[in-house]
Amino acid sequence: MDYFFHPKSIAVIGATPTRFKNGYSILRNLMSGYEGKVYPVNPRYEEALGFPCYPNVKAIPGKVDLAIIIVPAAMVPEAVEDCAAKGVPGVMIESGGFAEIGPNGKILQDRLVEIAVETGIRIWGPNCMGLVDAKHGHVFSFMHSKKFRAQLTAGKVSLVVQSGMLSAAFLVDLMSNGLMGISKACSVGNKVDVNECDLLEYLLADPDTDVVGLYLESFVNGRRFMDLCKKSPKPVVVLKGGKSKKGAEAAMSHTASLAGNQRIISGALAQAGVIEAKDFRQMADLCRTLALVPPRPAGQTGRIAVLTFSGGSGILAADFIDEMGLSIADLSEEIYDKLRRLFPEWRPVSNPVDLYPVIEDGTDVFSEAVKAALADPGVDAVFFHSNTGEAEHVSKMAALSKAAGKPVFIWTLGTKENTYDMQITARSCDLPVYQEIYRACECMAAVFKQKKPVDKATAIEGKGKAVSLTGELSHLIATETGPLDEYVSKNILKACSVPTVEEAVASSAAQAKEYAAKMGMPVVMKGLQPGGVHKTELGLVQLDIKTGQAAGRTFRDLKKKMQGNGQVLIQKQAAGKVELIVGLIRDPQFGPCVMFGVGGVMAEILNDVVFAVAPLKHHDALNLIGRLRSRKLLDGFRGAPPVNREEMARILMAVGNLGVACPRIAEIDINPLMITDRGAVAVDATIVLK
Amino acid sequence: MDYFFHPKSIAVIGATPTRFKNGYSILRNLMSGYEGKVYPVNPRYEEALGFPCYPNVKAIPGKVDLAIIIVPAAMVPEAVEDCAAKGVPGVMIESGGFAEIGPNGKILQDRLVEIAVETGIRIWGPNCMGLVDAKHGHVFSFMHSKKFRAQLTAGKVSLVVQSGMLSAAFLVDLMSNGLMGISKACSVGNKVDVNECDLLEYLLADPDTDVVGLYLESFVNGRRFMDLCKKSPKPVVVLKGGKSKKGAEAAMSHTASLAGNQRIISGALAQAGVIEAKDFRQMADLCRTLALVPPRPAGQTGRIAVLTFSGGSGILAADFIDEMGLSIADLSEEIYDKLRRLFPEWRPVSNPVDLYPVIEDGTDVFSEAVKAALADPGVDAVFFHSNTGEAEHVSKMAALSKAAGKPVFIWTLGTKENTYDMQITARSCDLPVYQEIYRACECMAAVFKQKKPVDKATAIEGKGKAVSLTGELSHLIATETGPLDEYVSKNILKACSVPTVEEAVASSAAQAKEYAAKMGMPVVMKGLQPGGVHKTELGLVQLDIKTGQAAGRTFRDLKKKMQGNGQVLIQKQAAGKVELIVGLIRDPQFGPCVMFGVGGVMAEILNDVVFAVAPLKHHDALNLIGRLRSRKLLDGFRGAPPVNREEMARILMAVGNLGVACPRIAEIDINPLMITDRGAVAVDATIVLK
Repeated sequence: MDYFFHPKSIAVIGATPTRFKNGYSILRNLMSGYEGKVYPVNPRYEEALGFPCYPNVKAIPGKVDLAIIIVPAAMVPEAVEDCAAKGVPGVMIESGGFAEIGPNGKILQDRLVEIAVETGIRIWGPNCMGLVDAKHGHVFSFMHSKKFRAQLTAGKVSLVVQSGMLSAAFLVDLMSNGLMGISKACSVGNKVDVNECDLLEYLLADPDTDVVGLYLESFVNGRRFMDLCKKSPKPVVVLKGGKSKKGAEAAMSHTASLAGNQRIISGALAQAGVIEAKDFRQMADLCRTLALVPPRPAGQTGRIAVLTFSGGSGILAADFIDEMGLSIADLSEEIYDKLRRLFPEWRPVSNPVDLYPVIEDGTDVFSEAVKAALADPGVDAVFFHSNTGEAEHVSKMAALSKAAGKPVFIWTLGTKENTYDMQITARSCDLPVYQEIYRACECMAAVFKQKKPVDKATAIEGKGKAVSLTGELSHLIATETGPLDEYVSKNILKACSVPTVEEAVASSAAQAKEYAAKMGMPVVMKGLQPGGVHKTELGLVQLDIKTGQAAGRTFRDLKKKMQGNGQVLIQKQAAGKVELIVGLIRDPQFGPCVMFGVGGVMAEILNDVVFAVAPLKHHDALNLIGRLRSRKLLDGFRGAPPVNREEMARILMAVGNLGVACPRIAEIDINPLMITDRGAVAVDATIVLK
Repeated sequence: MDYFFHPKSIAVIGATPTRFKNGYSILRNLMSGYEGKVYPVNPRYEEALGFPCYPNVKAIPGKVDLAIIIVPAAMVPEAVEDCAAKGVPGVMIESGGFAEIGPNGKILQDRLVEIAVETGIRIWGPNCMGLVDAKHGHVFSFMHSKKFRAQLTAGKVSLVVQSGMLSAAFLVDLMSNGLMGISKACSVGNKVDVNECDLLEYLLADPDTDVVGLYLESFVNGRRFMDLCKKSPKPVVVLKGGKSKKGAEAAMSHTASLAGNQRIISGALAQAGVIEAKDFRQMADLCRTLALVPPRPAGQTGRIAVLTFSGGSGILAADFIDEMGLSIADLSEEIYDKLRRLFPEWRPVSNPVDLYPVIEDGTDVFSEAVKAALADPGVDAVFFHSNTGEAEHVSKMAALSKAAGKPVFIWTLGTKENTYDMQITARSCDLPVYQEIYRACECMAAVFKQKKPVDKATAIEGKGKAVSLTGELSHLIATETGPLDEYVSKNILKACSVPTVEEAVASSAAQAKEYAAKMGMPVVMKGLQPGGVHKTELGLVQLDIKTGQAAGRTFRDLKKKMQGNGQVLIQKQAAGKVELIVGLIRDPQFGPCVMFGVGGVMAEILNDVVFAVAPLKHHDALNLIGRLRSRKLLDGFRGAPPVNREEMARILMAVGNLGVACPRIAEIDINPLMITDRGAVAVDATIVLK
């Protein structure tokens, strides 16, 4: 991939000396900052902006590391073929007019995929804005960079943006407001070949990049994306567009993306330790913060000392800190003593600490108070409110923060000029400054709540654990199609160590009676028909059978209803107050995913299901359980026994393993998984084969 | 109150010629902008800043409309007494050192309250920053105004801020960034006399104010506040600090506030048509928007056409519009035709409309596209994304918006300079501009979702509907204390038309049998003991009694358990899938409040209760029901009959009326209110008397 980022020579196919055309802008951008060779390609000109112009890429005498293509869509495939013939390793197609515009464009785009496969040439784009590298001053793009070029500041955050114009305007905005420095900004477009995974892999290995932020409308390969994030210690922030129905529709037509199931995406990102962002600037703020504040040592849970010039802002900060799951630090008596010495006698001191009365005195109580708070072992970070927006505050705080080895976050109100100076100073001395209290707290939470997965090295891609099934069950999975009946489905699950309800197929009324007596009343009896999944609707489920006689009668009834064509299942009626759902689905972006959620009567109202990508490690399974909104239900709901989380984790892992081991399994649905006095029990289940 | 806002003469008690002192700053601030008479008061000086200085307020020869007091706390009471003696109608105490600093300050503050009551003088503060009036150029405050004075821009938003320093810094920030114009900014401090209600009343009647935004840490009189908001057509935005436990503690020490029950406050604000804000700048953005965009005609639900330069920002906008309960407009075929004519042929057109390819052409497609979208009757507003941040966009859009009579909201990315110019232009041509998409959508939602109560004229304060109870029940309420037993409680509710379960007190086993037979099995039997509320824990509730014999036996059991000291209640066992809670509590800030929520097994997990301030009007009750998060439960949950919302509204109103009519009722708790096939039934209930 290095030829995209550090090419020694670039051909610009579609270069032109005509101003305001994109082929002109690319050339202009290369003329300042890029120091390699530049070859304009355009059969209509002999020369462009002082460079000799070539009729096609093959006519270029020297080696070409990268070709930037900006000719009309219809001419692109031929240009790429020429590049491949010339031995150019990579092309960046900035022209639009492909899959994003409908069927005709899709045909052209498919051709590009073919060329990439046939020739091995790597294709970046099409329909993209290319690349900006602030450290090296490279602008491989047609964006009009004049405006922000002077302000282009190198930093440690790299961005990948699946939206062309946005990446350009976003950069201008960030640079102009001094919000943060940038390492590389990549606009990926339609991702026919080079995709977010390729770029993420490159950037995570890039010494100039400390944090990667991505705006994505789709994941080309969710599992690879997760593995990259898991393996790297660098923070990754993702903003996923197209969460709503209308948003997803818009995403479809925009970069021809598959928007995906939002719950699965959020689950997968959490599992991979990725921070999810909500809006563009917020994503920038999160990235900026994570680039400035190194990961916190274990045990630092986010106990914040708030030092403020205003009781009001302290109160709001306390509200938000609580909302984000951080905590207001309990300051030690020692620190209170120190602070009290700084305060007029009449002032009570508590966290949030209102410094206002002392500010009035003109003394520099700021530094003293922040120093005292940072020295408290019960304080993980200081949240300092600056009332003047003076840049001096930032440099003072930066020195104190460095000396203490703990972060200081600043919120400020102030004049436009002061605020800008403050941002610039903050950028240069590694201290994060925010203009909204809520945003500051969101970013503090990202620092302290960020959880990189424990097993960085274990890939999600690749094989899961083998599943040992009997020959009969294996054969069945290999040959059947569609939904398997409840009895067979549970037999498969049982073989995978999922606890299932005690049950048997009765072949006669007498046997039904016998089983019922053996299992103990009450029992449930069900009629199983081949391919029949709507048992309840067909009256084939009979609950609460309390006598042997009733069991015999029910046997005959069910047989009659099924007209001889089916089996009668008899099972012990499980009792429990908590019903859960466990399942497996295959997601086009993330592959087999385990679902966990609330079942039974509450399912409809709570609508609480969470996902993780299979196979699950032990901690993945525990985290999945912990992500359930209604997890209170698991901790001894209304006198019910608490759910054994270890047992539940084993069940979730088993279901995931089964899905990974048997690609013919399209879907698993255990509903309900009843929590009884003796543990979890799969009461009903369906496995659907492809 | 006019003497606070438009005094003809002001005494500054504690004025001083010493720079950097607050008594100096107040004087300086009065010297520019304020055109009335100024009288410095300080026995240590003959003269201050060119004004003759008086030893005390009584020595001032002329009439004094307002005294601003800035002497040390201990000297304040005497100064106020002097003012009262002089006949000064109002004082603004900007000194701190009162209830916010602890018991000693509280004693001083209580003295101020006494003086106000004794003399009738109105007191603003203490512990406040006073008043800024941008239209008249008045700064009645010690805040250093030099920095923002030149930028102080008159607008239609007035602010009330219960936090001193914050109000000052906030103003500097807003003015300097060109975010909005201000009418009046009031810092209220400890509110010993003049409180948020007095100021709100004044501002809602003020012709220079169109929108009022308040940052509050407490409500002095919640019911009066609500009535003021309900009566006025002007939008009111409230940011309530101290929602979390730590935040509330901080609020307590800050302005000695009672932070209050957040759910009750949110319920009360919703009921009064108040918009709740989350953070300071967000509050400013909401106020600014509501001042720029007049209330929308009925039927405009917020169908938004998104016109963007970037597919990505269009996708995010669609996501947020969905999240906020607005909708992406279905554009008419006619409009699509118009838009298609503006687009290159290859471009599919759908909302959000990605204008990017046409922008590239250099044509001014913006205006044409926005015009076309505004003309669509299915569009209530246009959300326009500007890629350049050029002020010209704003003035063009403003003209189109005015011509169409529909709002245009702008989101922009751009350089710092462009963005500032854009804000200034936006302010002058009444068009809202935002720098974050999410914020823009929040503000659009405030415009379209804002619901002023239907019955502006009906006050919450004052009497509720009379309740007709028998002499016996009235006597009981008037004389008993503590919790009434279930039977008596339900009798009272029944008298107020709340449907209660069929029940009777049995005086013998035989009578128990007889009642059981009459009611129909199964029945429930309960032992009622005087003052006993823990029936279940004491084994005094027996469910599912199915025979007369069992009823007789249970009667004897219960009597035995109660050792003869109590009654046996027998009631028909109500069956239903949905259990609700209805109650009444008295809140110190809002008085009697009706609670409505989910009961039964789901209560613990859903924790879903909502409040409204009693008495409830019919629409208040319906809105209360509609605010339940789990309202899905009411609409035919799992085949259960849907809850009759009219009946439920009557029950909620009845409970509210009862609470208002009988001040001795401290609490009402109907739990559960069971939804049966024949409607709602109060199965258990307790009324607690003071």
